[in-house]
Amino acid sequence: MRLIECVPNFSEGRNLAIVEKIVDEFRAKEGVRLLDYSSDADHNRSVVTIMGEPATVAAAVVRAVGVAVELIDLTKHSGEHPRMGAVDVIPFIPIKNVDMNECVELSKEVAKELFEKYSLPVYLYENSCSAETRRNLADVRKGEYEGLEKKMKRAGWKPDFGEAPHPTAGAVAVGAREILVAYNVNLGTSDVAIADKIARVVRHAGGGLRFVKAMGIELAERNVAQVSMNLTDYKKSSIYRIFELIKIEAARYGVPVIGSEVIGLVPMQALVDAAEYYLQIENFSINQVIESRLINHGQNN
Amino acid sequence: MRLIECVPNFSEGRNLAIVEKIVDEFRAKEGVRLLDYSSDADHNRSVVTIMGEPATVAAAVVRAVGVAVELIDLTKHSGEHPRMGAVDVIPFIPIKNVDMNECVELSKEVAKELFEKYSLPVYLYENSCSAETRRNLADVRKGEYEGLEKKMKRAGWKPDFGEAPHPTAGAVAVGAREILVAYNVNLGTSDVAIADKIARVVRHAGGGLRFVKAMGIELAERNVAQVSMNLTDYKKSSIYRIFELIKIEAARYGVPVIGSEVIGLVPMQALVDAAEYYLQIENFSINQVIESRLINHGQNN
Repeated sequence: MRLIECVPNFSEGRNLAIVEKIVDEFRAKEGVRLLDYSSDADHNRSVVTIMGEPATVAAAVVRAVGVAVELIDLTKHSGEHPRMGAVDVIPFIPIKNVDMNECVELSKEVAKELFEKYSLPVYLYENSCSAETRRNLADVRKGEYEGLEKKMKRAGWKPDFGEAPHPTAGAVAVGAREILVAYNVNLGTSDVAIADKIARVVRHAGGGLRFVKAMGIELAERNVAQVSMNLTDYKKSSIYRIFELIKIEAARYGVPVIGSEVIGLVPMQALVDAAEYYLQIENFSINQVIESRLINHGQNN
Repeated sequence: MRLIECVPNFSEGRNLAIVEKIVDEFRAKEGVRLLDYSSDADHNRSVVTIMGEPATVAAAVVRAVGVAVELIDLTKHSGEHPRMGAVDVIPFIPIKNVDMNECVELSKEVAKELFEKYSLPVYLYENSCSAETRRNLADVRKGEYEGLEKKMKRAGWKPDFGEAPHPTAGAVAVGAREILVAYNVNLGTSDVAIADKIARVVRHAGGGLRFVKAMGIELAERNVAQVSMNLTDYKKSSIYRIFELIKIEAARYGVPVIGSEVIGLVPMQALVDAAEYYLQIENFSINQVIESRLINHGQNN
């Protein structure tokens, strides 16, 4: 079994009839599983999570983009979340028996098809980027839909496919990246300055772990400070290492760690890694986990 | 998705052609997954692990027993492992969206069918037992194939189905039980007496954790003593609690825990429980694990 995840973001979070029409392209399709979708009215944006065999996922995404380009009009769009297109971003994520290179190739094929089918200009980003300046989605999206026409004419910002914005659908960022894990550690203090100091030293930008983005925030309703994180490669910057490192840093302020949170989806391996570490398990294979067998064997073997 | 596991034990571990014919009944069957099978020549026994939808698994097991009754002749069987039948024992184990009561009912239906179809007498055991004296498989099997004729005539030992042994296939124990997890903890000593002392206090029989069976053994090739365990309910006697308890007991002898082992298959939840404990994760749902979603959603949703 070969699996990728794809998490397309659509710029519609209020008209749920439109969202359903888009999501329908992922429903009851052979080889595609709709894992999750959620709409945010303030952001005016919907995030869909699907998983399946690479070519099948790619085909479904292309169809869904077609629906979105037809039904979403960015000239009338407003919302809190930055966006540059009816479909804002399409990341392809390797999950099982698929490597990053293959996801990069797939993202480029999808990008080409989106331009050819819908005249939708595409910026390749993350591991698919054609220049380092385009790796970061925030840089690609800067100026948003309203600034696209000018941006595309500036040196270094011609899209990878196309050269002018789609009149109503803007542009889309397509790329391959590792799966993100959202992980937070709660501190036994309400002092957000302490959470922030810890965040600064455990994150990559501050000399900390390579695949950790972190900031200190306040959980007002609990009167607790939190180190809020995105793990961009949970295999290399393991959850247990991050957790223990934060404990060590918190100790210097006499602050205990009172809990942690995993937000949204997480790969089984990320938690099994932690169990293996703490239980000092020797010679364990993920294939010993029953659920892993079930998935690898598919339905009828 | 509703799932049970079944681990039938067949009294043939040398003639692999026969084993293959039995296992064929679990191959490429809609709704049944063959997770594992292994044969032991010394034991002259094969253990098959399958999983799937309850009714489908039951039907496949009945067919496989038919093959075994036809091809295995207990009058000519010898091996190290105790056995009383061509098919020695058939446990049904609830895995997902199926409760123990349902597995008990299923085991009784299968038992009835085995007797009606093959004139194979059945003892119900474990959670399906008709009397407490029949709960334990070792008690049911005592006397083995050779002693069956006499045993069935003794007070309290008439089978639940049938009243005389099948001439070549003996009898079979059928029942419902929780999944077993084989878990061992290795000590930084070669003194097996210490492992044995620890085993005695952490196990149920010695006043320890309710669902733990334990003994001290020696890993000769590593010159290391081990607390070797079977966990009969990993949800109630959690792996992390056992591990920490053994650490505490080992400390009184100045002995460190140097590692642990999970043998064979383990449910994802058993390891996720450990990760949740050590990482102090709050409000986690197993449904946040991607693999869990994949299994619950099935192939095409």
